[in-house]
Amino acid sequence: MPRMASILLAAVAALGANVAHASVDADQGKALASQGMGSVPACASCHGAQGGGMAAAGFPRLAGQGEQYLREQLEALANGSRTSPVMAPIAKQLNEGQRAALARYYAQLPTTLDVDGLAATGRDVASTADRGAWLATRGEWGRNLPACNQCHGPGGIGVGSQFPSLAGQPAAYLVAQLRAWREGHRPPGPLALMPAVATRMDDQEIQAVAAYYAQLPARGKSSSSSSSSSSSANTAPTTTASNAPTATNAAATPPATAAHAMDTAPTQPPLFTPPPASAIPDNAFGKIVRQGEQIFLRTPELAPGFVGNNLTCASCHLDAGRRPDSAPMWAAYVVYPAYRAKNGHVNTLAERLQGCFRFSMNGKPPAADDPVLTALQTYMFWLAQEAPTGVKLAGQGYPKLAPPPQKPDYVRGSEVFGQFCAACHGSQGQGQKQGDHWVFPALWGPDSYNWGAGMHQIGNAAGFILANMPLAQAGLLSPQEAWDVAYFMNAHERPQDPRYKDSVAATRKRYHDDDDTLYGLEINGHVLGSESPPAGGRLQRDAEADGTAAR
Amino acid sequence: MPRMASILLAAVAALGANVAHASVDADQGKALASQGMGSVPACASCHGAQGGGMAAAGFPRLAGQGEQYLREQLEALANGSRTSPVMAPIAKQLNEGQRAALARYYAQLPTTLDVDGLAATGRDVASTADRGAWLATRGEWGRNLPACNQCHGPGGIGVGSQFPSLAGQPAAYLVAQLRAWREGHRPPGPLALMPAVATRMDDQEIQAVAAYYAQLPARGKSSSSSSSSSSSANTAPTTTASNAPTATNAAATPPATAAHAMDTAPTQPPLFTPPPASAIPDNAFGKIVRQGEQIFLRTPELAPGFVGNNLTCASCHLDAGRRPDSAPMWAAYVVYPAYRAKNGHVNTLAERLQGCFRFSMNGKPPAADDPVLTALQTYMFWLAQEAPTGVKLAGQGYPKLAPPPQKPDYVRGSEVFGQFCAACHGSQGQGQKQGDHWVFPALWGPDSYNWGAGMHQIGNAAGFILANMPLAQAGLLSPQEAWDVAYFMNAHERPQDPRYKDSVAATRKRYHDDDDTLYGLEINGHVLGSESPPAGGRLQRDAEADGTAAR
Repeated sequence: MPRMASILLAAVAALGANVAHASVDADQGKALASQGMGSVPACASCHGAQGGGMAAAGFPRLAGQGEQYLREQLEALANGSRTSPVMAPIAKQLNEGQRAALARYYAQLPTTLDVDGLAATGRDVASTADRGAWLATRGEWGRNLPACNQCHGPGGIGVGSQFPSLAGQPAAYLVAQLRAWREGHRPPGPLALMPAVATRMDDQEIQAVAAYYAQLPARGKSSSSSSSSSSSANTAPTTTASNAPTATNAAATPPATAAHAMDTAPTQPPLFTPPPASAIPDNAFGKIVRQGEQIFLRTPELAPGFVGNNLTCASCHLDAGRRPDSAPMWAAYVVYPAYRAKNGHVNTLAERLQGCFRFSMNGKPPAADDPVLTALQTYMFWLAQEAPTGVKLAGQGYPKLAPPPQKPDYVRGSEVFGQFCAACHGSQGQGQKQGDHWVFPALWGPDSYNWGAGMHQIGNAAGFILANMPLAQAGLLSPQEAWDVAYFMNAHERPQDPRYKDSVAATRKRYHDDDDTLYGLEINGHVLGSESPPAGGRLQRDAEADGTAAR
Repeated sequence: MPRMASILLAAVAALGANVAHASVDADQGKALASQGMGSVPACASCHGAQGGGMAAAGFPRLAGQGEQYLREQLEALANGSRTSPVMAPIAKQLNEGQRAALARYYAQLPTTLDVDGLAATGRDVASTADRGAWLATRGEWGRNLPACNQCHGPGGIGVGSQFPSLAGQPAAYLVAQLRAWREGHRPPGPLALMPAVATRMDDQEIQAVAAYYAQLPARGKSSSSSSSSSSSANTAPTTTASNAPTATNAAATPPATAAHAMDTAPTQPPLFTPPPASAIPDNAFGKIVRQGEQIFLRTPELAPGFVGNNLTCASCHLDAGRRPDSAPMWAAYVVYPAYRAKNGHVNTLAERLQGCFRFSMNGKPPAADDPVLTALQTYMFWLAQEAPTGVKLAGQGYPKLAPPPQKPDYVRGSEVFGQFCAACHGSQGQGQKQGDHWVFPALWGPDSYNWGAGMHQIGNAAGFILANMPLAQAGLLSPQEAWDVAYFMNAHERPQDPRYKDSVAATRKRYHDDDDTLYGLEINGHVLGSESPPAGGRLQRDAEADGTAAR
């Protein structure tokens, strides 16, 4: 197993500590919060009567945060692993039960968090000139900085028990937390993601991101302060802007190019970098480029008639289709039209994209001249600016891995999954959403890609995982672990192959007759494909309800 | 006016000499041919009883050649402008009437010329390794050598009175003629095309082309010899293979880049050369590339449901879409998708091609995922191998000319047309065909592009003409002459704009409201567009006959 040692194992272990506190008493929490206890002041005196926080002082909103998250913070403050001159002495005076009671109380407090509004705010970035907004919503993948929203949800609304909501938190508070992670004063949390991310950010970036989230219009009910403090953070002089950590920049190099893991091509394919999003021209052409980019990022929402699950194009093609070794769109653009063994003929780019909708999105393909396909092709064309036509570029597709030392294994894969994947994708691979807003894609089950998608092939998935997962932490897994977890992921039931005909066995023979797919094979007593949810997902269910369903 | 002086004017003047010989007596010709006269031997003794020629001796077939062509040859032999130790003394002993009688006699003799078979043979070149076949059917446009078939018709079947059939002529005869043109021993003929072409060919090329035509299975009825003589020509040792004339190579540079004629872009766009046709891979992908290439060259035949006239893609995009300044396909490929003012939105390449079918081909557009469009796009993609995506390349589109010194003029244009264009495109711009096989595209009238096509714009047409016309003789026209003849060409009636609505005036206002088009304007007392043949041409007529026509 991998590189980052004790810090990560501690973090991973913490994930397992999801102890049920049957005796937790929210009323006890409420009393403590409003009245305090001995030398413990009322929480409300700083965090507000309804837990809304106090922006001017940098005191965070607690209302509506995840219960487990809050409890873990109090425990960390109590045991000293999270430092805070104000909170540490308080947390130390509370016993475990009191901390749990407070966590439950604040978790259930209502907020005015406008999830839908935030999701909208956080998605459509007006200008790349707003550095904070860009980092929060799009990230800077070249330095292995995914968008904050990638885990914290659109608009920083917060997701599940591990990813607190950032929207409307005081900028000073957010800045202090990112610095604490960078300097080792706060426990690493799931997969040690936050220390990894924070060490890649300089002070200017930290302040810009904090200012962005602080001004998002979401507060606990009692909040009264404006976002003035966050604005000032944005314009405050930065004293250490130039100390961007070069060591971590080096570590940001995607591991996909590591020689041990990949089949190295005899001649090195050319390198290519797509133009920055800020270069999209402000004209009628640029408008369609942007439209394509938005469809790419918000596919079920903007192409609803064609998507049967809740994946987006960016679920498998990270950084809005820019990231090398993540099947980037610029590299795909220049190799189509191409012959595909999958359907036995030359496919235009439009037909290739239709395949994505049919299989990966478990939906139905737009017509070849549908505006959705035009916008996506235009976006891809623009990303490929100046790339040589017909030339395979470095980073194209997913890396082709060498066969693993040991045959991929379900049990080992399940262990990798629990350690590295479940925190985001859910213990049942079901993904995670906040309200109606999907944040982490489902890896199997009715809301994932179907049995016809390229990602169901173990080699494809292993290449993707090794080069890109866990998010912003690629390099943690060994090739063997990537193969094992890819096997595990694809050893679960998912929507039927839309090309299904006659029987699972016949369909396997026709489309899946190789070692790279488990479709039609018996795994743990279940023949994969035999109980698949219908292909087409939501679209098919809607059609059946209408009586307009067609196979 | 232009560069090449007296030789050309003489040739042009010869074109006008289409004198009617009302008193010509074919029977007199027959008698002369079979019996001779005094010291004039019977023509049949060398050219065969039915005028089929004698391959082994290099005596040409006369049967079925154009009457005017034959008469001109006898006159040239008689007056010494065409040299031949055998024929000159004979021709000198004949008077004008006898020569005319012989020409008429031989012109009406039947041949076994299998026009359909030849057209097929001449079109689908099996291998670029056969240099003669390639030059004959595709040419070498980089050196300003158009395919011989471009004027002599598919399979060298011969076209009209100016372009004799080459199929099945003895190789020795064809070699001797090409050499005679190269060395000034044969009159230049229409537009002095043959001396221009012949001086660009070395001996090896001349022999290869001659061998190719000699082996094509077409003879006069009495022919008895096999193609052995032509085969031997192909393998004969070549003594002057290396004396390719460098001076003429220099002259082959397309004049489109001449600074006086073009608006020079501030920064020079990159140069690009598409891969040779011999590089098309021999696999499933290459098969579609070839299919696209063939559709490009034989559009009405291979995409019949979508073409309403008898143009091919290559009519406007010379050298199978390779020639710079002739809207080459490699340059088009890399700039789509693109916003087009013509329809006010971003067009994919597929939609752009649909426009070609609708307007330039006066047909109906294939569906966006029709195999015809897939093949054309695949061919274009292949031509653009390694070209930078999204970059405007040198030679893209048609050259944008500076405004002409004088306003374009109908009368001056008609003079240019008569001198330089009518020989191939017909005196009424109707094009020329041999049997059912179109060789020279119609420039106006019911079988040309319609009023919605880009070529109907005067500036577009002028740019194309200056850079490319007359075929293989570009550079003969001045920019003013190109503008004048473009104006003249587009001052004639052509099929209706398929976007026509309400009235010609309303349609002009909606789509043609600028100086670059004459649609809707009155020229010589006729409002252009007011008597247009219906858009859709043949397709529309067929649909009307079926009762399935829809506007």
